[in-house]
Amino acid sequence: MTDINRRIVLASRPHGEPSPAHFRMEETRAPTPKAGDVLLRNRFLSLDPYMRGRMSAAKSYAKPVEIGETMVGGTVSEVVASQNPDFPEGTLVAGFGGWQDLWVSNGAGLRRLDPEAAPLSTALGILGMPGMTAYTGLLNIGRPKPGETVVVAAAAGPVGSLVGQIAKLKGARAVGIAGGPDKCAYLVDELGFDEAVDHRGADLPGALAEACPNGIDVYFENVGGAVFEAVLPLLNDFARIPVCGLVSGYNLTDLPPGPDRSPLLMRAVLTKRLHIQGFIVWDFAEQEAAFLGEVGTWLRDGRVKHREDIVEGLDKAPGAFIGLLKGRNFGKMLVRIS
Amino acid sequence: MTDINRRIVLASRPHGEPSPAHFRMEETRAPTPKAGDVLLRNRFLSLDPYMRGRMSAAKSYAKPVEIGETMVGGTVSEVVASQNPDFPEGTLVAGFGGWQDLWVSNGAGLRRLDPEAAPLSTALGILGMPGMTAYTGLLNIGRPKPGETVVVAAAAGPVGSLVGQIAKLKGARAVGIAGGPDKCAYLVDELGFDEAVDHRGADLPGALAEACPNGIDVYFENVGGAVFEAVLPLLNDFARIPVCGLVSGYNLTDLPPGPDRSPLLMRAVLTKRLHIQGFIVWDFAEQEAAFLGEVGTWLRDGRVKHREDIVEGLDKAPGAFIGLLKGRNFGKMLVRIS
Repeated sequence: MTDINRRIVLASRPHGEPSPAHFRMEETRAPTPKAGDVLLRNRFLSLDPYMRGRMSAAKSYAKPVEIGETMVGGTVSEVVASQNPDFPEGTLVAGFGGWQDLWVSNGAGLRRLDPEAAPLSTALGILGMPGMTAYTGLLNIGRPKPGETVVVAAAAGPVGSLVGQIAKLKGARAVGIAGGPDKCAYLVDELGFDEAVDHRGADLPGALAEACPNGIDVYFENVGGAVFEAVLPLLNDFARIPVCGLVSGYNLTDLPPGPDRSPLLMRAVLTKRLHIQGFIVWDFAEQEAAFLGEVGTWLRDGRVKHREDIVEGLDKAPGAFIGLLKGRNFGKMLVRIS
Repeated sequence: MTDINRRIVLASRPHGEPSPAHFRMEETRAPTPKAGDVLLRNRFLSLDPYMRGRMSAAKSYAKPVEIGETMVGGTVSEVVASQNPDFPEGTLVAGFGGWQDLWVSNGAGLRRLDPEAAPLSTALGILGMPGMTAYTGLLNIGRPKPGETVVVAAAAGPVGSLVGQIAKLKGARAVGIAGGPDKCAYLVDELGFDEAVDHRGADLPGALAEACPNGIDVYFENVGGAVFEAVLPLLNDFARIPVCGLVSGYNLTDLPPGPDRSPLLMRAVLTKRLHIQGFIVWDFAEQEAAFLGEVGTWLRDGRVKHREDIVEGLDKAPGAFIGLLKGRNFGKMLVRIS
């Protein structure tokens, strides 16, 4: 055990795309647990698109990271010193430890992990926040019925890939939108999606229309922008749109040029009786046990699959995160911290 | 009884605002009821904003009126000749008879009216389609809770005025947006709204913010455009937006100039976890009996009030309808057909 904690702090706020210069690695003295506390060493750090929002000062559902503060993020950690009998040394936990080696917790918000039940890293992906986002958003807002068509963008990512697989388990048709032929092949060949559409192709609206001959009943929104514009004309009456993320817009510094298309959107809402609803996973916090039980069983039974994209070393986190916002990852983006 | 039926047909499709030239009065031979039919003479014709949509060829939730066809619309009528024992001569019914004197029905879709229970014209207003629109949209999608703030635009109209009054009955705060000081005074002094905001005032966003110190939990959308833009920044987390109409946009021929504000709307949906849902009244057709029972009781008990704006004579229908789209009516717009 060392006395040094490496951490990555927000060095400055990006205007547009973040660059490595917006982050800074610091070394500080490791924190000391007080009575009731545990000292945790991070093994895995989760990188997720929502973190772009925390880098901005704009009001959102969570407060921003301040300049000089450690970047926030979900972690899998091991208890390396304990003054809390609930979490003895050696306990493995999922928590929210941020972009660093070591942190102190009083135990609140820690979830004990059993490495025999599932690989530890799944607690940050298919059995963690992204998986629960897919599960709760699709089942509470999307509510796919057998025979309906469910479209999800960023479909090779940890949220989208589970959305499509759950849609299939519920008897719906799953159409995934992803960037590039490898991801599209993975969706159909590995995960059992009915169709995959490459958003980098020449004619996204045409390709999507071809993949959805009966229109779209559920559109799980992760990205916004051009993908949403291609989806809108294909939506059926009474379509449901869980709005989980808008990653295509997170780096925008100005609104797109005119005309103002918002009246088109509202007119579609009215005439098609659309149901558009934003959510974040913790709006459904009371469903965590149901999620872990059901998706955990599916995962053990091989009824759902997942894929991880792991970089080695905390110092790789900024670059991996910048790539994530551009869709360069292929699977759940994780940092293994050695 | 006469052999002549006067009817108003769609003469041509408007591009932008309708004018009298888009309508034509015709006289034709009265239709003859066959076995099982009734001949109906209209007493009241309802004029409603949705009719603007029927004048356009654009796809919507109902098929357009064809050129040369009688304009559609809800009516209160009397059976003047009957070959249907369920509806003997003299029966008063609500139906969908359109802009004309006489029409034939086989009885399907006719609702018998009791003139002792409520004035006949209410079957087209507070106890008809507009009232049921307010009731079902507010209670199924808006779901106001005690202490919440409900905002409704076109608040002096038949839908908006009932939305605000039901919000009050459910323990919420009601804020109405209407055009001009007379309508605003009516909302507060007669209907018991907590606040009224004149959308013709110099600073709608500022006035609305002042009227909603705790933000907006339910926005019942009738109008769109500048009113919606003033509402959006005031919406609280988890606000519900039943989208019933967008009357400010019905005559638009082009999208408004840029920038494209739709990303702002979607970002608000995500960060505030908004629930936006379009509906038309017949999506909740199974709630008609509950609506008639509950609002009928409130009306008889004086717990809800209503107001009518009646023009005399079928030939006045086009002018009254054109004025309705500009908010010139004050109360439920009706044509008395003599």
